[in-house]
Amino acid sequence: MAAKPESYENIVQTASKLFFHQGYHATGLNQILTESGSPKGSLYYYFPRGKEELALECIRRGNELVKQKLKKALAGNDDPVLAIQEFIRETAVDADRNGFSGFMPFGFWAAAETSCISESLRHACVNTFTDWQHIYTERLQAAGWMEEKARSFAVLIISMLEGALILAVTQQSSAPIYNVVDYIPQLIK
Amino acid sequence: MAAKPESYENIVQTASKLFFHQGYHATGLNQILTESGSPKGSLYYYFPRGKEELALECIRRGNELVKQKLKKALAGNDDPVLAIQEFIRETAVDADRNGFSGFMPFGFWAAAETSCISESLRHACVNTFTDWQHIYTERLQAAGWMEEKARSFAVLIISMLEGALILAVTQQSSAPIYNVVDYIPQLIK
Repeated sequence: MAAKPESYENIVQTASKLFFHQGYHATGLNQILTESGSPKGSLYYYFPRGKEELALECIRRGNELVKQKLKKALAGNDDPVLAIQEFIRETAVDADRNGFSGFMPFGFWAAAETSCISESLRHACVNTFTDWQHIYTERLQAAGWMEEKARSFAVLIISMLEGALILAVTQQSSAPIYNVVDYIPQLIK
Repeated sequence: MAAKPESYENIVQTASKLFFHQGYHATGLNQILTESGSPKGSLYYYFPRGKEELALECIRRGNELVKQKLKKALAGNDDPVLAIQEFIRETAVDADRNGFSGFMPFGFWAAAETSCISESLRHACVNTFTDWQHIYTERLQAAGWMEEKARSFAVLIISMLEGALILAVTQQSSAPIYNVVDYIPQLIK
Protein backbone atom coordinates (compact mmCIF):
# COMPACT_ATOMS: atom_id res chain seq x y z
CA MET A 1 0.00 0.00 0.00
CA ALA A 2 1.43 3.38 -1.03
CA ALA A 3 2.20 5.78 1.82
CA LYS A 4 -0.44 8.47 2.32
CA PRO A 5 0.70 12.07 1.77
CA GLU A 6 1.69 14.11 4.82
CA SER A 7 -1.36 16.38 4.53
CA TYR A 8 -3.66 13.32 4.76
CA GLU A 9 -1.82 11.96 7.83
CA ASN A 10 -1.98 15.38 9.43
CA ILE A 11 -5.76 15.58 9.13
CA VAL A 12 -6.37 12.00 10.31
CA GLN A 13 -4.04 12.26 13.30
CA THR A 14 -5.49 15.59 14.42
CA ALA A 15 -9.05 14.31 13.99
CA SER A 16 -8.28 11.09 15.92
CA LYS A 17 -6.80 13.08 18.79
CA LEU A 18 -9.79 15.41 18.95
CA PHE A 19 -12.45 12.70 18.60
CA PHE A 20 -10.81 10.63 21.35
CA HIS A 21 -10.33 13.64 23.62
CA GLN A 22 -13.67 15.38 23.19
CA GLY A 23 -16.02 12.92 21.54
CA TYR A 24 -17.55 12.93 18.08
CA HIS A 25 -20.18 15.62 18.49
CA ALA A 26 -18.01 18.07 20.39
CA THR A 27 -15.45 18.06 17.56
CA GLY A 28 -16.17 20.31 14.61
CA LEU A 29 -14.52 20.26 11.19
CA ASN A 30 -13.30 23.81 11.71
CA GLN A 31 -11.36 22.79 14.81
CA ILE A 32 -9.79 19.89 12.88
CA LEU A 33 -8.79 22.27 10.08
CA THR A 34 -7.38 24.88 12.47
CA GLU A 35 -5.41 22.44 14.64
CA SER A 36 -4.02 20.50 11.69
CA GLY A 37 -3.24 23.68 9.79
CA SER A 38 -4.98 22.26 6.71
CA PRO A 39 -6.91 24.19 4.08
CA LYS A 40 -10.61 23.30 3.88
CA GLY A 41 -10.15 22.00 0.35
CA SER A 42 -7.74 19.27 1.41
CA LEU A 43 -10.17 17.83 3.96
CA TYR A 44 -12.94 17.54 1.40
CA TYR A 45 -10.47 16.26 -1.21
CA TYR A 46 -9.54 13.28 1.00
CA PHE A 47 -12.95 12.89 2.69
CA PRO A 48 -15.67 14.02 0.29
CA ARG A 49 -18.38 12.87 2.74
CA GLY A 50 -16.91 15.06 5.46
CA LYS A 51 -16.89 14.36 9.19
CA GLU A 52 -18.51 10.94 9.08
CA GLU A 53 -16.05 9.57 6.51
CA LEU A 54 -13.15 11.03 8.48
CA ALA A 55 -14.49 9.43 11.69
CA LEU A 56 -14.70 6.04 9.93
CA GLU A 57 -10.99 6.25 9.13
CA CYS A 58 -10.23 7.26 12.76
CA ILE A 59 -12.24 4.28 14.06
CA ARG A 60 -10.33 1.99 11.68
CA ARG A 61 -7.00 3.37 12.92
CA GLY A 62 -8.06 3.16 16.58
CA ASN A 63 -9.06 -0.45 16.03
CA GLU A 64 -5.71 -1.32 14.38
CA LEU A 65 -3.82 0.25 17.28
CA VAL A 66 -5.74 -1.70 19.92
CA LYS A 67 -5.48 -4.94 17.90
CA GLN A 68 -1.69 -4.61 17.68
CA LYS A 69 -1.35 -3.96 21.43
CA LEU A 70 -3.76 -6.78 22.27
CA LYS A 71 -2.06 -9.34 20.01
CA LYS A 72 1.34 -8.44 21.40
CA ALA A 73 0.11 -8.71 25.01
CA LEU A 74 -1.66 -12.03 24.41
CA ALA A 75 1.47 -13.51 22.84
CA GLY A 76 3.51 -12.41 25.86
CA ASN A 77 2.59 -15.23 28.23
CA ASP A 78 2.00 -18.98 27.81
CA ASP A 79 -1.03 -18.66 30.09
CA PRO A 80 -3.69 -16.68 28.17
CA VAL A 81 -5.44 -15.56 31.35
CA LEU A 82 -2.24 -14.11 32.81
CA ALA A 83 -1.66 -12.44 29.44
CA ILE A 84 -5.15 -10.87 29.53
CA GLN A 85 -4.50 -9.61 33.05
CA GLU A 86 -1.24 -8.07 31.86
CA PHE A 87 -3.03 -6.34 28.94
CA ILE A 88 -5.59 -4.81 31.30
CA ARG A 89 -2.82 -3.75 33.69
CA GLU A 90 -1.07 -2.00 30.76
CA THR A 91 -4.33 -0.21 29.96
CA ALA A 92 -4.46 1.06 33.55
CA VAL A 93 -0.86 2.28 33.31
CA ASP A 94 -1.69 4.09 30.03
CA ALA A 95 -4.75 5.71 31.63
CA ASP A 96 -2.66 6.95 34.58
CA ARG A 97 0.04 8.22 32.23
CA ASN A 98 -2.51 10.20 30.22
CA GLY A 99 -3.85 11.76 33.40
CA PHE A 100 -7.48 10.85 32.49
CA SER A 101 -8.33 14.34 31.35
CA GLY A 102 -8.80 14.07 27.64
CA PHE A 103 -8.55 10.29 27.82
CA MET A 104 -11.59 8.56 26.39
CA PRO A 105 -12.22 4.83 25.93
CA PHE A 106 -12.88 3.66 22.39
CA GLY A 107 -16.20 2.12 23.31
CA PHE A 108 -17.30 5.42 24.57
CA TRP A 109 -16.74 8.05 21.91
CA ALA A 110 -17.04 5.74 19.00
CA ALA A 111 -19.42 3.00 19.88
CA ALA A 112 -22.16 4.47 21.97
CA GLU A 113 -22.03 8.11 20.93
CA THR A 114 -22.07 7.44 17.22
CA SER A 115 -24.22 4.28 17.20
CA CYS A 116 -27.33 6.29 17.93
CA ILE A 117 -26.69 8.60 14.99
CA SER A 118 -25.20 6.81 11.99
CA GLU A 119 -25.55 3.24 10.79
CA SER A 120 -22.19 3.25 9.00
CA LEU A 121 -20.37 4.42 12.14
CA ARG A 122 -22.28 1.86 14.19
CA HIS A 123 -21.19 -0.92 11.82
CA ALA A 124 -17.57 0.20 12.03
CA CYS A 125 -17.80 -0.06 15.83
CA VAL A 126 -19.48 -3.47 15.70
CA ASN A 127 -16.60 -4.66 13.49
CA THR A 128 -14.09 -3.28 15.97
CA PHE A 129 -15.60 -5.09 18.95
CA THR A 130 -15.90 -8.26 16.84
CA ASP A 131 -12.22 -8.06 15.89
CA TRP A 132 -11.20 -7.79 19.56
CA GLN A 133 -13.53 -10.64 20.49
CA HIS A 134 -11.92 -12.87 17.83
CA ILE A 135 -8.42 -12.13 19.08
CA TYR A 136 -9.30 -13.10 22.67
CA THR A 137 -11.31 -16.13 21.52
CA GLU A 138 -8.58 -17.50 19.23
CA ARG A 139 -5.93 -17.08 21.93
CA LEU A 140 -8.07 -18.96 24.48
CA GLN A 141 -8.91 -21.70 21.98
CA ALA A 142 -5.21 -22.09 21.19
CA ALA A 143 -4.78 -22.83 24.90
CA GLY A 144 -7.42 -25.54 24.78
CA TRP A 145 -10.63 -23.67 25.67
CA MET A 146 -13.88 -24.77 24.02
CA GLU A 147 -15.08 -22.22 21.45
CA GLU A 148 -18.31 -21.24 23.17
CA LYS A 149 -16.68 -20.73 26.56
CA ALA A 150 -13.84 -18.75 24.96
CA ARG A 151 -16.30 -16.51 23.11
CA SER A 152 -18.47 -15.68 26.12
CA PHE A 153 -15.37 -15.01 28.22
CA ALA A 154 -14.09 -12.65 25.49
CA VAL A 155 -17.36 -10.71 25.52
CA LEU A 156 -17.21 -10.47 29.32
CA ILE A 157 -13.62 -9.19 29.28
CA ILE A 158 -14.51 -6.49 26.74
CA SER A 159 -17.62 -5.53 28.76
CA MET A 160 -15.70 -5.31 32.04
CA LEU A 161 -12.85 -3.33 30.55
CA GLU A 162 -15.00 -0.82 28.64
CA GLY A 163 -17.18 -0.27 31.72
CA ALA A 164 -14.17 0.07 34.02
CA LEU A 165 -12.70 2.64 31.62
CA ILE A 166 -15.87 4.73 31.89
CA LEU A 167 -15.68 4.62 35.69
CA ALA A 168 -11.95 5.41 35.50
CA VAL A 169 -12.45 8.46 33.26
CA THR A 170 -15.29 9.71 35.45
CA GLN A 171 -13.50 9.18 38.77
CA GLN A 172 -10.07 10.02 37.32
CA SER A 173 -8.69 6.93 38.96
CA SER A 174 -7.34 3.67 37.57
CA ALA A 175 -8.71 1.72 40.57
CA PRO A 176 -11.76 0.32 38.68
CA ILE A 177 -9.42 -1.08 35.98
CA TYR A 178 -7.19 -2.83 38.55
CA ASN A 179 -10.37 -4.15 40.18
CA VAL A 180 -11.13 -6.02 36.93
CA VAL A 181 -7.61 -7.51 36.96
CA ASP A 182 -8.18 -8.77 40.52
CA TYR A 183 -11.42 -10.56 39.62
CA ILE A 184 -10.19 -12.39 36.53
CA PRO A 185 -8.76 -15.47 38.28
CA GLN A 186 -12.18 -16.15 39.84
CA LEU A 187 -13.86 -16.06 36.45
CA ILE A 188 -11.97 -19.03 35.10
CA LYS A 189 -12.50 -21.35 38.04
CA MET B 1 -40.84 19.81 48.71
CA ALA B 2 -43.24 21.93 46.67
CA ALA B 3 -44.20 20.52 43.27
CA LYS B 4 -42.39 22.12 40.37
CA PRO B 5 -44.54 24.00 37.86
CA GLU B 6 -45.56 22.20 34.69
CA SER B 7 -43.33 24.36 32.49
CA TYR B 8 -40.29 23.32 34.55
CA GLU B 9 -41.20 19.61 34.35
CA ASN B 10 -41.74 19.95 30.64
CA ILE B 11 -38.25 21.33 30.03
CA VAL B 12 -36.51 18.79 32.29
CA GLN B 13 -38.33 15.79 30.85
CA THR B 14 -37.70 16.85 27.25
CA ALA B 15 -34.03 17.56 27.98
CA SER B 16 -33.59 14.21 29.77
CA LYS B 17 -35.11 12.36 26.84
CA LEU B 18 -32.88 14.16 24.33
CA PHE B 19 -29.66 13.87 26.38
CA PHE B 20 -30.24 10.14 26.90
CA HIS B 21 -31.17 9.57 23.26
CA GLN B 22 -28.55 11.65 21.50
CA GLY B 23 -25.89 12.49 24.06
CA TYR B 24 -24.96 15.81 25.65
CA HIS B 25 -23.15 17.47 22.79
CA ALA B 26 -25.58 16.47 20.08
CA THR B 27 -28.44 18.12 21.99
CA GLY B 28 -28.81 21.87 21.55
CA LEU B 29 -30.90 24.24 23.67
CA ASN B 30 -32.94 25.17 20.60
CA GLN B 31 -34.05 21.58 20.14
CA ILE B 32 -35.03 21.37 23.82
CA LEU B 33 -37.05 24.57 23.47
CA THR B 34 -38.75 23.44 20.25
CA GLU B 35 -39.62 19.92 21.45
CA SER B 36 -40.86 21.07 24.84
CA GLY B 37 -42.75 23.99 23.30
CA SER B 38 -41.20 26.33 25.86
CA PRO B 39 -40.29 29.99 25.32
CA LYS B 40 -36.56 30.73 25.61
CA GLY B 41 -37.17 32.94 28.64
CA SER B 42 -38.55 30.08 30.73
CA LEU B 43 -35.47 27.92 30.20
CA TYR B 44 -33.15 30.68 31.36
CA TYR B 45 -35.53 31.57 34.18
CA TYR B 46 -35.27 28.04 35.64
CA PHE B 47 -31.69 27.39 34.54
CA PRO B 48 -29.76 30.66 34.45
CA ARG B 49 -26.50 28.81 33.71
CA GLY B 50 -28.09 27.18 30.67
CA LYS B 51 -27.34 23.74 29.28
CA GLU B 52 -24.88 22.63 31.95
CA GLU B 53 -27.23 23.44 34.83
CA LEU B 54 -30.08 21.70 33.02
CA ALA B 55 -27.88 18.62 32.44
CA LEU B 56 -27.03 18.53 36.16
CA GLU B 57 -30.73 18.30 36.98
CA CYS B 58 -31.16 15.53 34.34
CA ILE B 59 -28.24 13.57 35.83
CA ARG B 60 -29.79 13.94 39.30
CA ARG B 61 -33.14 12.66 38.01
CA GLY B 62 -31.53 9.80 36.07
CA ASN B 63 -29.67 8.81 39.22
CA GLU B 64 -32.86 8.85 41.32
CA LEU B 65 -34.65 6.67 38.77
CA VAL B 66 -31.88 4.05 38.71
CA LYS B 67 -31.57 4.12 42.52
CA GLN B 68 -35.27 3.42 42.95
CA LYS B 69 -35.20 0.52 40.47
CA LEU B 70 -32.02 -0.88 42.00
CA LYS B 71 -33.29 -0.68 45.60
CA LYS B 72 -36.55 -2.33 44.63
CA ALA B 73 -34.77 -5.14 42.76
CA LEU B 74 -32.25 -5.76 45.58
CA ALA B 75 -35.08 -5.99 48.12
CA GLY B 76 -36.85 -8.55 45.92
CA ASN B 77 -34.85 -11.63 46.88
CA ASP B 78 -33.32 -12.90 50.14
CA ASP B 79 -30.19 -13.82 48.21
CA PRO B 80 -28.50 -10.55 47.15
CA VAL B 81 -26.64 -12.19 44.27
CA LEU B 82 -29.87 -13.59 42.77
CA ALA B 83 -31.38 -10.12 43.26
CA ILE B 84 -28.48 -8.50 41.37
CA GLN B 85 -28.90 -11.02 38.55
CA GLU B 86 -32.61 -10.16 38.39
CA PHE B 87 -31.82 -6.42 38.22
CA ILE B 88 -29.44 -6.96 35.30
CA ARG B 89 -32.00 -9.18 33.57
CA GLU B 90 -34.59 -6.39 33.94
CA THR B 91 -32.09 -3.99 32.37
CA ALA B 92 -31.77 -6.33 29.38
CA VAL B 93 -35.56 -6.52 29.04
CA ASP B 94 -35.76 -2.69 29.14
CA ALA B 95 -33.07 -2.44 26.46
CA ASP B 96 -34.93 -4.86 24.20
CA ARG B 97 -38.20 -3.05 24.79
CA ASN B 98 -36.64 0.29 23.81
CA GLY B 99 -35.31 -1.25 20.61
CA PHE B 100 -31.75 0.05 21.29
CA SER B 101 -32.07 2.90 18.86
CA GLY B 102 -32.07 5.99 20.99
CA PHE B 103 -31.29 3.97 24.10
CA MET B 104 -28.16 5.14 25.82
CA PRO B 105 -26.60 3.92 29.08
CA PHE B 106 -26.20 6.49 31.83
CA GLY B 107 -22.47 5.91 32.11
CA PHE B 108 -22.15 6.75 28.52
CA TRP B 109 -23.83 10.04 27.81
CA ALA B 110 -23.33 11.47 31.22
CA ALA B 111 -20.19 10.07 32.68
CA ALA B 112 -17.67 9.80 29.91
CA GLU B 113 -18.96 12.38 27.46
CA THR B 114 -19.31 15.16 29.98
CA SER B 115 -16.41 14.24 32.30
CA CYS B 116 -13.89 15.44 29.75
CA ILE B 117 -15.57 18.83 29.49
CA SER B 118 -16.97 20.05 32.79
CA GLU B 119 -15.83 19.44 36.37
CA SER B 120 -19.29 20.03 37.82
CA LEU B 121 -20.87 17.47 35.46
CA ARG B 122 -18.04 15.06 36.22
CA HIS B 123 -18.67 15.40 39.97
CA ALA B 124 -22.38 14.76 39.48
CA CYS B 125 -21.51 11.55 37.65
CA VAL B 126 -19.00 10.48 40.31
CA ASN B 127 -21.75 10.97 42.92
CA THR B 128 -24.14 8.87 40.85
CA PHE B 129 -21.75 5.93 40.54
CA THR B 130 -20.92 6.26 44.26
CA ASP B 131 -24.62 6.14 45.16
CA TRP B 132 -25.11 2.93 43.15
CA GLN B 133 -21.98 1.43 44.68
CA HIS B 134 -23.31 2.13 48.19
CA ILE B 135 -26.64 0.49 47.45
CA TYR B 136 -24.99 -2.72 46.22
CA THR B 137 -22.41 -2.67 49.05
CA GLU B 138 -24.99 -2.18 51.81
CA ARG B 139 -27.20 -4.94 50.44
CA LEU B 140 -24.29 -7.39 50.33
CA GLN B 141 -23.10 -6.39 53.82
CA ALA B 142 -26.64 -6.93 55.12
CA ALA B 143 -26.31 -10.50 53.83
CA GLY B 144 -23.06 -10.97 55.76
CA TRP B 145 -20.39 -9.95 53.24
CA MET B 146 -17.26 -8.21 54.52
CA GLU B 147 -17.21 -4.52 53.60
CA GLU B 148 -14.14 -4.61 51.36
CA LYS B 149 -15.31 -7.63 49.40
CA ALA B 150 -18.78 -6.12 49.01
CA ARG B 151 -17.35 -2.83 47.75
CA SER B 152 -15.05 -4.35 45.12
CA PHE B 153 -17.87 -6.62 43.93
CA ALA B 154 -20.13 -3.57 43.62
CA VAL B 155 -17.54 -1.75 41.47
CA LEU B 156 -17.18 -4.85 39.29
CA ILE B 157 -20.94 -5.19 38.79
CA ILE B 158 -21.21 -1.53 37.74
CA SER B 159 -18.21 -1.91 35.38
CA MET B 160 -19.59 -5.07 33.76
CA LEU B 161 -23.07 -3.65 33.33
CA GLU B 162 -21.99 -0.26 31.92
CA GLY B 163 -19.61 -1.96 29.49
CA ALA B 164 -22.20 -4.54 28.47
CA LEU B 165 -24.68 -1.71 27.82
CA ILE B 166 -22.19 -0.07 25.45
CA LEU B 167 -21.76 -3.34 23.56
CA ALA B 168 -25.54 -3.82 23.56
CA VAL B 169 -26.24 -0.36 22.14
CA THR B 170 -23.55 -0.81 19.50
CA GLN B 171 -24.60 -4.31 18.46
CA GLN B 172 -28.31 -3.64 19.04
CA SER B 173 -28.53 -6.87 20.96
CA SER B 174 -29.14 -7.64 24.63
CA ALA B 175 -26.85 -10.71 24.47
CA PRO B 176 -23.85 -8.97 26.15
CA ILE B 177 -26.11 -8.03 29.11
CA TYR B 178 -27.36 -11.62 29.55
CA ASN B 179 -23.72 -12.75 29.30
CA VAL B 180 -23.00 -10.73 32.48
CA VAL B 181 -25.93 -12.42 34.24
CA ASP B 182 -24.50 -15.84 33.32
CA TYR B 183 -21.07 -15.07 34.80
CA ILE B 184 -22.22 -13.69 38.14
CA PRO B 185 -22.48 -17.03 40.01
CA GLN B 186 -18.81 -17.73 39.22
CA LEU B 187 -17.75 -14.41 40.69
CA ILE B 188 -18.93 -15.25 44.18
CA LYS B 189 -17.39 -18.69 44.44
